[in-house]
Amino acid sequence: MTLKEKVGQLNQKLYGWQVYRKNGNQYELTEIFKQHVQKFQGMGALYGLFRADPWSGINFENGIPLEDALHVTNMIQEYLREHTRLGIPVLFSEECPHGHQALDSTVFPTHLGSGATWNPDLQTKVSEHIASELVERGVHLGLVSTLDIARDPRWGRTEECFSEDPYLAARMTEAVVKGMQGDNKESPHVIAVLKHFAAQGAAVGGHNAGPALIGERELREIYLPPMKAGVRSGALACMAAYNEIDGIPCHANRKLLTDILREEWNFNGIVMADGTALDRLLLLTGDKELAAAYALNAGVDLSLWDDVYTQIEAAVRNGKIKESVVDKAVKRVLYVKFLLGLFSEVDDKPRSVSVNRSKGQTLNMEMARQSITLLKNEHNLLPLSKRNKTVAVIGPNADSVYNLLGDYTAPQRREAAVTIKQGITKIVEEDCEILYTKGCGIRSTDMSGFDHAKSIASKADIVILALGGSSAREFGMEFENNGAVLDYDQAEMDCGENIDVANLDLGGVQKNLVQELASLNTPMIGVFIQGRPYSLKDIEAYLDAILIGWYPGQLGGQAIAEVLFGDVNPSGKLPVSIPYSADQLPVYYNVKNSGAKQDYYDEVGRAMYSFGYGLSYSSFQCEFSTKEQEAISIHALTNGEYINVSVDVVNIGAYDGFAVVQLYIQDLEASVTQRTKELKAFQKVWIPVGESKNVKLQLGFEELSIWNIEMKQVVEPGMVMLMAGESSDQLDEKKLVIYEE
Amino acid sequence: MTLKEKVGQLNQKLYGWQVYRKNGNQYELTEIFKQHVQKFQGMGALYGLFRADPWSGINFENGIPLEDALHVTNMIQEYLREHTRLGIPVLFSEECPHGHQALDSTVFPTHLGSGATWNPDLQTKVSEHIASELVERGVHLGLVSTLDIARDPRWGRTEECFSEDPYLAARMTEAVVKGMQGDNKESPHVIAVLKHFAAQGAAVGGHNAGPALIGERELREIYLPPMKAGVRSGALACMAAYNEIDGIPCHANRKLLTDILREEWNFNGIVMADGTALDRLLLLTGDKELAAAYALNAGVDLSLWDDVYTQIEAAVRNGKIKESVVDKAVKRVLYVKFLLGLFSEVDDKPRSVSVNRSKGQTLNMEMARQSITLLKNEHNLLPLSKRNKTVAVIGPNADSVYNLLGDYTAPQRREAAVTIKQGITKIVEEDCEILYTKGCGIRSTDMSGFDHAKSIASKADIVILALGGSSAREFGMEFENNGAVLDYDQAEMDCGENIDVANLDLGGVQKNLVQELASLNTPMIGVFIQGRPYSLKDIEAYLDAILIGWYPGQLGGQAIAEVLFGDVNPSGKLPVSIPYSADQLPVYYNVKNSGAKQDYYDEVGRAMYSFGYGLSYSSFQCEFSTKEQEAISIHALTNGEYINVSVDVVNIGAYDGFAVVQLYIQDLEASVTQRTKELKAFQKVWIPVGESKNVKLQLGFEELSIWNIEMKQVVEPGMVMLMAGESSDQLDEKKLVIYEE
Repeated sequence: MTLKEKVGQLNQKLYGWQVYRKNGNQYELTEIFKQHVQKFQGMGALYGLFRADPWSGINFENGIPLEDALHVTNMIQEYLREHTRLGIPVLFSEECPHGHQALDSTVFPTHLGSGATWNPDLQTKVSEHIASELVERGVHLGLVSTLDIARDPRWGRTEECFSEDPYLAARMTEAVVKGMQGDNKESPHVIAVLKHFAAQGAAVGGHNAGPALIGERELREIYLPPMKAGVRSGALACMAAYNEIDGIPCHANRKLLTDILREEWNFNGIVMADGTALDRLLLLTGDKELAAAYALNAGVDLSLWDDVYTQIEAAVRNGKIKESVVDKAVKRVLYVKFLLGLFSEVDDKPRSVSVNRSKGQTLNMEMARQSITLLKNEHNLLPLSKRNKTVAVIGPNADSVYNLLGDYTAPQRREAAVTIKQGITKIVEEDCEILYTKGCGIRSTDMSGFDHAKSIASKADIVILALGGSSAREFGMEFENNGAVLDYDQAEMDCGENIDVANLDLGGVQKNLVQELASLNTPMIGVFIQGRPYSLKDIEAYLDAILIGWYPGQLGGQAIAEVLFGDVNPSGKLPVSIPYSADQLPVYYNVKNSGAKQDYYDEVGRAMYSFGYGLSYSSFQCEFSTKEQEAISIHALTNGEYINVSVDVVNIGAYDGFAVVQLYIQDLEASVTQRTKELKAFQKVWIPVGESKNVKLQLGFEELSIWNIEMKQVVEPGMVMLMAGESSDQLDEKKLVIYEE
Repeated sequence: MTLKEKVGQLNQKLYGWQVYRKNGNQYELTEIFKQHVQKFQGMGALYGLFRADPWSGINFENGIPLEDALHVTNMIQEYLREHTRLGIPVLFSEECPHGHQALDSTVFPTHLGSGATWNPDLQTKVSEHIASELVERGVHLGLVSTLDIARDPRWGRTEECFSEDPYLAARMTEAVVKGMQGDNKESPHVIAVLKHFAAQGAAVGGHNAGPALIGERELREIYLPPMKAGVRSGALACMAAYNEIDGIPCHANRKLLTDILREEWNFNGIVMADGTALDRLLLLTGDKELAAAYALNAGVDLSLWDDVYTQIEAAVRNGKIKESVVDKAVKRVLYVKFLLGLFSEVDDKPRSVSVNRSKGQTLNMEMARQSITLLKNEHNLLPLSKRNKTVAVIGPNADSVYNLLGDYTAPQRREAAVTIKQGITKIVEEDCEILYTKGCGIRSTDMSGFDHAKSIASKADIVILALGGSSAREFGMEFENNGAVLDYDQAEMDCGENIDVANLDLGGVQKNLVQELASLNTPMIGVFIQGRPYSLKDIEAYLDAILIGWYPGQLGGQAIAEVLFGDVNPSGKLPVSIPYSADQLPVYYNVKNSGAKQDYYDEVGRAMYSFGYGLSYSSFQCEFSTKEQEAISIHALTNGEYINVSVDVVNIGAYDGFAVVQLYIQDLEASVTQRTKELKAFQKVWIPVGESKNVKLQLGFEELSIWNIEMKQVVEPGMVMLMAGESSDQLDEKKLVIYEE
């Protein structure tokens, strides 16, 4: 390969929607595309051919619907075969943080909701389905946020995180890799580009892409476990994170991208840059060739929209980059193309796949159902009877499709989604009357809808208030060159990428609406559609029941109705702590056992609702099967043995349901500071009324090792407290001794 | 020396007030003391013999007044000489964070106020005076907070910090060392125990002694510079910090206390533990002997109140500590005793010193005057005329002595201090009428005083509102075993050690008071007495002028009156940024140049008033003397040369006054992320009306080097932006090029 051809393979410069023009159902390739192919004698990857959203400006008019998808990808591959010397096909990469961000795709709950399911097996099936939708269109790489840890709810991308907890996020990351790539590591369905590596959730102040000031131990304990688990599961790609870690941008961080990722963990896939992130390295150097050298030497293989990697050829010619370094990256890109069958496809027909859409719908429903998290249920107000009542459905999130879907969502066909109002209307019996009004907006300060809201609430037997936030982008917004929202004017949204907030109260006049309606003394249920935890302290007392629906996806309205009216027993557990207010931040459950006082003078320090919390319509009792102290040797753990911990759970309530058995540890004797509680195993189990299950959980080296004072991962001798429970605030305890042999 | 005798030298177990009993003006030593001396065959140090405060329970009744001080220290030394084999005298260590925390001592402004003076020379004189008051009583070690960097205003010890900025704090630390120890390093007056080493200000959430999660680069850039400067100035002691840094408690942190402190910086003094901090190591180990081993091996020489160092002898006998490690610590303690002349005094009379009290008062006045920071002065309302008007003085901080003094303050004699009301009453002419009422409390929600406040305000030509916080401890409070406040009930205080707040609004009903009084339309001046920045956003609009008085010390009321009525032209500059609210935290000026958006969706990200800001009654113009680009080679910088930067500043206003010329840099080309602005030099200069001064500032290796990707301190070639100004938001710019030779 010539140097130019090599550089071409490392570039992913164009926006997918720039490469075609649509006329009716005819497609032609643009000059921009052809010139690029000509200039670089090929193309490493093409991002977002199918991306449709307000930023790209792509919609059902000008975008590629499902039925034309394979035709367009084939057309592009054919052009490359015919117009480049080597004819190497391009990798199509697409966003799929919760379903493919394309027309006619399935939109699942965002990951904060998936995290709330505590069900990695379900996530595997969902990811498998998403992969099938990608393959169906000829896509190879699916960009998916699994690595970000939600440590500051001000961050607008909290919705994309599975959890504040590294263990839960690691389990879900494994599930995504398994689901998307499939079981055969030599022939993945598609490749999951896990993002973002690493520590984007540690950004100071919750500012998107802000610097992470953390040290290596915090990095390894909290932020690296998902990627480490991903690599163990066969992950073949990740995306570097925008942020720096203690002064070193991830995109220039050789220790992270090479020493740890490749040498320590044996990752052999590709590292993709984040969008224009390589251009941000100019803040350091002011020199594109030098920036290219930093990134390539650090371990970034593939660009994304930046100018920097287009300068690699010049940088090699000027001696700033060794060609052998370029070769390494090229080999990795070609290896991935090889694994994906791009070379064997040259003369074959592209893979076709039959997507089972009804299975997709079933999975989407199930994910939404299991994500819904019940925080309060005074006097067992829920579940509601479906008969003979008047139900007032009020709130800015009661009848909005896009508010249910989260950021990174494509335009929807009208019939694709079910709103909360629609879900409720459909589920109740005919003798029920459903009254609806919006009441107020998400951020608007207009209270003119309060009177009508009060009027319908006063006629109702029950008020269902759908409040929260929204990440719904609108046409007419301005965007940065990486798709982040630049200017939002009076938009009715407050979450998503680059929409970080300082204050965690509900936006606009939503709190006022709650307080106004409370004066009627009609029982009220708050349903919160949200991509981050909001402060509930000012309204909690007015609400008889509180359900968190997260962003529940296209079928979220139906799932919420099923929970409200008892078809589904809620089983979500908080994947993030809900603080009283932003003043307390940071708030997470796995704090260091430092001896410092947790509370402030003027406010408690703990969360209002802590990680792992979530009610069921039933009740479960959970305790260790034996109270006897457990014991295992360092030698055994180091050799891959596990300690088996057995927990008995009984359903003592009146509803069949899921229990989530959670196993936490506290290392009581260690050479460096440990945390008061760390999740190290869990299992979600279905338990019929009156029955009990015995759940077996395992703790091995990974769970019981610590990063010692020399930053080595070791198991140290001493006592460990084991804590098991169905909710993080009611834990059975017993001890484990780790002994030297 | 026997092992027991050695261990005795490493212990500082007793509280000073436990060792004597007072009867009239007779003193006797207690059994506790004698038993301890017997048990350890000596005593390394004795903490707080003169400490008087609600925690110790020591007051004018049962404590040691100035006139008896030397008698008691001599009595103790004599006992040690006569009742131990070696007769080694004890080190008396005392708190002096802003003056000696003893009866009859001078109480200076707390360090946040000293930081606002931007006047290290004045700090040197103040510290010299404090030292003389210590020497007068036979004290050897003065514990003084200089190392803590104020990065989170929720932290109650923010008042003890000089600044959010490492450079300003480093210059002030040098000043303290020079002032307290004197010029002769072989014979220091007293030894300053600089605290806390290190990074206590990085505690997560602003929780006192909470974990610092930071990495080494953040540590070196922000938190280590004060101690490094202190060591360069000859510092002979420091205190380890309660917090951990990225998992390693400072008291067990060999890299910090030995590798960096001693090997990298050549520190040859002693490291003291913080109070009971060694006992907190039991959170790790559960084993006192092991904890002792951790700390001694890390480099802690002297204990403070803990049980852990009393176990050293057992730990040596059990093989957990090598006796050679004990020997090193003992040598350091004895070296310090030698330097302080304790061995030469054995047969001589103790040193006596004549303290110039009127000079102390003068310095205290000057420090208070220069600390006062003017943030707003609408229509030049200030300075006020002293003639012919009615002045309403209102607020919880208008007539309270203790609220002016900060934490770590001893009981005061009635005549020792001047409140704001007293200062104003004294300064105005006889034709002025002063009306006073408290209006409300610091935290109380009682509004019953509003009516009277409105009534006197309505009669006044001007309202001076003295608001803010308080660190005044009260008898009857409960304390932890390290003196931190445990329970405060309804106490009218909200700051100081262990009083961390979540919300930065003014406490109680102070905001309501401002709003009530504003309805009268009488011109209002807000004077804020405070140990941390409070949010001013809800009241700023109601106040025509805003003065921050910090905790201004015993003469603060007079200094504030002098500023209000024009005897003194204010010259304080903010040592910390004042945020809009706690929701925005962290807020500091020297942010990383990360490319991330600074603002939130719902609030700006910047400070309301930024670091370095402060008005004068005059106006100054400040610009580089030449616009020409500066240049210096790496070689020259590495060899100790400096680049001289010359700045012209002109007083274009109508008042003589101090200008503070501030020089910031931004490194524009570097291998690791740099900050948008970093203070690297400053000078406070007095400039009469219409005159100009040429200020010469220097930048050398320390100022222009960075911590590169290998964590080496190097100067890199490239462009550096120089920014000079009299306020951080109006900066003249020019470039400096650093070239390779």
